[in-house]
Order: sequence, then C-alpha cells, then structure tokens
Amino acid sequence: MATIRDRIATRNLVSGDKLPSIRSCARQMAVSNSTVVEAYDRLVAEGIIQSRRGSGFYVAGHTAPLSIAQIGPKLDRAIDPFWVSRQSLDARPDMLKPGCGWLPPDWMPEQSIRRALRTLARASDDVLVEYGTPLGLAPLRQLLSRRLAGYGIMAEPDQVLLTESGTQAIDMLCRFLIGPGDTVLIDDPCYFNFCALLRAHRANIVSVPFGPNGPDIDAFANVLATHKPRLYITNSGLHNPTGASLSPQTAHKLLNLAEQHDLIIIEDDIFADFETTPAPRLTALGGMERVIHIGSFSKTLSASMRCGYIATRPDWIDQLIDLKVATGFSSSNLAPELVHTVLKDGTYRKHMDGLRDRLSRTMTQTANNLASLGIHPVLAPKAGIFLWCALPDGIDAAQTARNALADGVVLAPGNVFSMSQSAGNLMRFNVAQCQHPKIFEVLERAMRS
Amino acid sequence: MATIRDRIATRNLVSGDKLPSIRSCARQMAVSNSTVVEAYDRLVAEGIIQSRRGSGFYVAGHTAPLSIAQIGPKLDRAIDPFWVSRQSLDARPDMLKPGCGWLPPDWMPEQSIRRALRTLARASDDVLVEYGTPLGLAPLRQLLSRRLAGYGIMAEPDQVLLTESGTQAIDMLCRFLIGPGDTVLIDDPCYFNFCALLRAHRANIVSVPFGPNGPDIDAFANVLATHKPRLYITNSGLHNPTGASLSPQTAHKLLNLAEQHDLIIIEDDIFADFETTPAPRLTALGGMERVIHIGSFSKTLSASMRCGYIATRPDWIDQLIDLKVATGFSSSNLAPELVHTVLKDGTYRKHMDGLRDRLSRTMTQTANNLASLGIHPVLAPKAGIFLWCALPDGIDAAQTARNALADGVVLAPGNVFSMSQSAGNLMRFNVAQCQHPKIFEVLERAMRS
Repeated sequence: MATIRDRIATRNLVSGDKLPSIRSCARQMAVSNSTVVEAYDRLVAEGIIQSRRGSGFYVAGHTAPLSIAQIGPKLDRAIDPFWVSRQSLDARPDMLKPGCGWLPPDWMPEQSIRRALRTLARASDDVLVEYGTPLGLAPLRQLLSRRLAGYGIMAEPDQVLLTESGTQAIDMLCRFLIGPGDTVLIDDPCYFNFCALLRAHRANIVSVPFGPNGPDIDAFANVLATHKPRLYITNSGLHNPTGASLSPQTAHKLLNLAEQHDLIIIEDDIFADFETTPAPRLTALGGMERVIHIGSFSKTLSASMRCGYIATRPDWIDQLIDLKVATGFSSSNLAPELVHTVLKDGTYRKHMDGLRDRLSRTMTQTANNLASLGIHPVLAPKAGIFLWCALPDGIDAAQTARNALADGVVLAPGNVFSMSQSAGNLMRFNVAQCQHPKIFEVLERAMRS
Repeated sequence: MATIRDRIATRNLVSGDKLPSIRSCARQMAVSNSTVVEAYDRLVAEGIIQSRRGSGFYVAGHTAPLSIAQIGPKLDRAIDPFWVSRQSLDARPDMLKPGCGWLPPDWMPEQSIRRALRTLARASDDVLVEYGTPLGLAPLRQLLSRRLAGYGIMAEPDQVLLTESGTQAIDMLCRFLIGPGDTVLIDDPCYFNFCALLRAHRANIVSVPFGPNGPDIDAFANVLATHKPRLYITNSGLHNPTGASLSPQTAHKLLNLAEQHDLIIIEDDIFADFETTPAPRLTALGGMERVIHIGSFSKTLSASMRCGYIATRPDWIDQLIDLKVATGFSSSNLAPELVHTVLKDGTYRKHMDGLRDRLSRTMTQTANNLASLGIHPVLAPKAGIFLWCALPDGIDAAQTARNALADGVVLAPGNVFSMSQSAGNLMRFNVAQCQHPKIFEVLERAMRS
C-alpha cells in the first residue's frame, strides 16, 4: 500500500494509470497474491484506486500537487539541494555565505550597470514597453554568436535563443528533450541544482564519477551501455564544484561514446569567462548535432539581470520557440539590453581581467587559510571561484555545515553535490565569499563540535 | 503503425512503455490479430519498439524531442495559436496589429518607466547584482497584498510569489497541479495561449461555452460530471476575447460546483486594472482553498518588464518555491523594482484613469468603423481593449486573416480562441491597435476577396 501511495505522490502513477496485475505485483514485491488482493482492496476502500470489472485496477481521482521534495530519497536537510539553495537565497544580510555559488555584490561591475540603466532610460518606447521577439534581442544574439565563435562554436545569431537564466535554459531543454522516467546522466559531483531540476522533471538520474580531466571515461562508457541515458548535463570549462577542466582527450572519447549511444549533451558554460586558458568545448569539437551550449551572465555581471541563452541546431530552435511562446509567451528586452550595453562598451573585458586577477590572489589566500585548519583542495583549479576540499579525516561535512549555520555561516557540504553520497568528507568553498576572518573561526569550531 | 508512431511523437507513449497486447490492440483498432502482429513486427524491425520474451512489446530507444506543434489536431496556420502568437511577436515594425493582445507603445507610461530606470540606477549594489529571494521583492509583494485586499482577496505578502510573467505563472501552476493526461477545462472562446500552454503539458483539454455572464453553468456542471477536470483556467473581470465579466450569480454557482467536484480554479486577472466597475473575483468569493489568483503588468505598464505573480495558499506557496528554485533558481529584482517604483509614485493611478477614458472613446470609435463594414460586437464590453465581433454573414474569419496578412495587417480570427472551432465567423479586435485608417481598408478588401 505504501509503495502504491508513494508512486502516486511522486507521479510515477497518475490518475487513470493501470496498476500491475495482482500476480505480477505479488511477484515483484515477493509477497503472496492474497496480500496484494488485500492491499488493493483497502486502497479501493480509501478511494485511491478503482477496480474496473474484467480490466484490473486503476489509479482514481486527481493527481496530487507536485511536491518535488517528496521525489527521490529523503535527505538530511543539510544535504538537500532545495534546502541549501533556499538557505543561500534567503540568508539574512548579516550572514556569511562561503557555501553560495556567486560573487559578493562589491565584486560586480556596478558602475557599468548603473551607466547601462541610465542609457536604457533614454531608449526608444518599444524597447521599454513592447514584448520582445521570441528569440530575444537581436544585437545581443549577434554579439553572443561572435563570442561563441571565439571558442570555435559556430552558431548563427538565429541559432541563439535568449532565456531568463542558465537554469531556465536547462529547464526548457529538459522539457524539450526528456519525459518522465527518461534517464539523464550527471557528473558526481555536480552542481546540486541539476538534481533538483531533474527531480522536477521526474527523470531517472544516474551519475558518473568526475575527476581532474572530466568524467571517468570507463565508467562513462559503462553507464551509457547499462542505463542508456538520453541526456548528459555537464560543464566543460571550470566544472562546478571541483574547478576541474575537461581535457582534450577526454572530450574526444566522450563525444565518440555519445555518438555511439545516441546521447544528447547539454554543455552548461556559465563559468566560461572566469577561465584563463580555455578548455576544449564539446560543442566546438562535436558540433551542434548532439551538443547544446548554454550560458548566462549571472556569475560575472549580475544575478539580478536574469539573462541566459541556448545555442543549438536550427530545427530545434524552431521547436523551442513554440515551447517558449507557450510557456512564457515572450522575452523581456530589459535585461538583454542592459547585458548588451555592458558587453559592448569595453568595460566588461577590463572587469573580467580584474576579476580573474583578484580571484587568483584570493584563491591562494583562501587555500592558505583553509590549510591552517587541515582543509586541502582535492585538485588545484586553473581559475574560477571554487575550491573543492577535503576536511580533516573523520570530519563530517554535513554536521559541520549544520553547526556553522547556527553561527550565521552558510556552507556547502560535499554530499549536496554527490548523487552517490560519496562526498561526506568534502566541502565546496567559494573563495570570493571567504574574505571575512569570522568564517575560519566558525569553521574551526563547527568541525570540532 | 501510424497510430503507434503518432503516440510516440506526442509522448503519449514514451521509452519503456508497454504497448497494448496484440489482442487488445486488434480489438481497439477493429483489425485482425495478424494485422497487428505484422505492424508490431515491422516496428520492431525499424527499431521503434522492442519485443521482450514472455512480456510483450515495449517502446524502444529515446523519447523524441517535444514538438508542441505536433500535439493536438493539425490546424490551419491562420488559426494555430503558435502561428498567431509568432506573427504578432515577430511582426515587422511597419505592420499593423489589430489582432494582437497588447497596447501600442505610445499608450504606455513611458515617462514613469524612464524615471523608474533612473531611480534604479541609484539603487544599492545588492539590488543591481544579487539574486533576489525565491518569493521575490518584498515591498512589491506587500503592495500587491494591499491591492488584492481592494478586491476582497485576502493574501498576506508571503502568499504572493513573483513570477516572470502571467504566462509563466500559469505554466508553473500547471507543472504543480497537473500531469500528462490530466483533464483541464477552459472557456470557449478563451485566450488562445491557454491551449498552446496546455498542449505543452500534454493535458487533455475540454471546454465550456462562455457567454455574457461567464461560463454556461448547465454546460459547466455537465462537463465536471462527465470529464472530471482537475483544473479550470478562466478570467473573471474582462474576459479575453469577449470582454464579458463574470456575474455574481454565475460566480456563486460556479464555486459551488467546483467544491462539489473537487475542481481547482486559476483566475487569470491580468486585465483587472482596465475595469471601471469591478466584477466579483472568484478568489474573493471562494477563498484560497481552491482558487488561485494570478496577475501581471504586461498590459498596463510594460510588456518588456516581465513581472507577474501568483497568490495562493501558504502550503502551496512553499511547494511552489521549491519548483521555482529547481526550474529558474531565483527571481530577478530588476523588473519588480521598476514595477514597484511606478506603482507607488502615484503616476500609475493617473495613467490608468487616462487609459480607461481613452479606451472607452476608442472603443466607441472602433465599433463605429467596424459597423460601417457590417461587423458588429457580439456583446458590449464594460471596458477593456477587446471587441469580440461577428463578421457579415458568410465571411470566413480565417480566410480574411490570411488575406489581410498579405497586406501587412495581423488579425485574430475567432477559431484561434475556440476549442470547439465554432467561431469561424467571429474576430477579436484590439481597439487601441485599430487607430490607423488603413486597417479598415485592408479589412474590407480581405473580406471581399
């Protein structure tokens, strides 16, 4: 009874679905037929399922509202992706957030943004009040097309679709590419919101260990053969949380395997501009037949100006426009106008140069501060904002995060990022958010208690 | 074979689903068993389905990308919701758009928006560059809570969740409330994008005739009893496309039926501010147990500043936040800050007063212009931007729209709005977009040819 109820709550069974026959259910659960008969009878009595004469048992009534929190295993709050996101997003202003995934406000190019807002205040009427086209602001798409060419990614402006954010880009692609029960492959560890998002799509999630050069290729081949995933979501440059970059050889092998197993890849490239030496892009190597490229400006420009994009095949762009019109009607021009103004005025390049230098210095400094607590990076990232670190032996990251939160510090314990829950001793640190000395004091106390 | 292929293309059957047994398939399609055996064998040979020994036939391989255009009946382009949306959104600047659903740019409060942008240029860092909270900008939610109270809708600020738009609000609620195959009730006629959106959710769509006082209550009761929809999406004040308003008596009966049949209602109230005498709100009468209220500012302030909202029960708000974090991560503060600045500075009220007067005059004038072509409103709206009109006897609206488009005029033929396709002689006119005399010349020619 509990199994059926769970499957209904998580929408694996929806109103009108036929239940397994009594015999096959008994076999699956390794119980007697009469036990199943009794369970089904009780569920009928509760109005949860209906019996149709000569045809079997069916799910009755209405689909329950979707509770993503109820999909997938029950997790400790400290390692539940939703809880960590909501803690970071809802943090009081006086809290410190070395566990969050973005830069502090004073690292962002606020002067350029203020200037762009004043420019926008003088724009023509239609920019300010009209719906944008479904593809989104043309000059920004032209600029993105040229930027992508710099990575060897050949996408015409009409192959670039603007979205509200990087997350919304992946969400739209999941709606486009997968259905409930389809298998999706992610890295272990990977950005925790991939899991949350895939749970919302009721996907079957499998993972592959991610090492210093990209996914473990033998494990990758094995997962493709065994689980036949439809889709793989990954980062090529500056992987979140490890800071690793894909090696050319791994990229090449990975693309061959994708071809062989008809796998589609979403290359989430939102950290691209932090790179000092660009990693190979899967989209550049493999082309757009099966690799989809996405990006955004939340990490380098402003998280408040929501603006992301998808670069993909022309035939898919056309179908994605229908999906965009149906589910969001249109694009805003506002954020894209601001992003475009900042990108083209020349200050963005200077801002990023300064940011990379500052991050490099801060990364060294933070690594030293962590080392003094016996916390060491698992690998040395070439650039970016993250250090993926091992805590001293025997220290549990989730417990440490729970303790630190009580002291006003939001941390990101390893298992939040790990499908296999094999990162209990690891933690991700955002070096730009590790400036305050209180963080290390709280961390030391949190590990001890 | 075509039936199975169609069901796979539209995701009614997905990878791993079991096909009906040969015998039951033969019975359903009224063909012989051997015909089905042959069809299944050929589909196996094509790799579309797989045979599993002793267990039956299963859908093989991967789910095809979602093509919404392939879901539902094939429609003539002129009455396909996607085509009409895309025509309006992608229209060249020199085209005239009496068929579109929004005001011309010069009707919008551009001075207030420019002022709000200059104010925003002086805002604090965190407003400009930080992620917003998942619920969205608190001062705007407080203001919306007070505004809703003016309609008798009692929603605390924490019961108001900001979204990117009214469409995105409905989309998020559909993801929350329904699953593929669930039945959803809409008005006939209704806003055409409801259909497009519900097709993206693979919902089973049923409709009820909508008259001058709201839905036909006898038909409504009948549909609830027969089809047991989970959800009803409607407008209470100034219905799109008819301009009708819900009468108190219809609202009362409708809510009793909803209660009786466990129906959830989304009240899409994006035209509220155009009303001169407010219609009763279902949310106000029935409370938030089963009525969800949504709104936006795209029609009265700016379609470029994407900002909508959902007001609902606290327990649903909490689950919706998870869904929002998973699928979009966070809110922008940008558009909400601008909307809040304009709403609170006192100019919005004056803008709306002026807009209502201007619309009232324009509606009379447009009705006169249409009357001279033998085109007459089906009912006289109390306010708003739409006239829902009958063309002269024997004139086909779809053909007229097709002809007019060739002359650079985008029209909205009745069947775009009609699930039952019973509005072939009707057309929706946006009076604010009917200012140019060329429109009536083109319309006359288009009806004749």
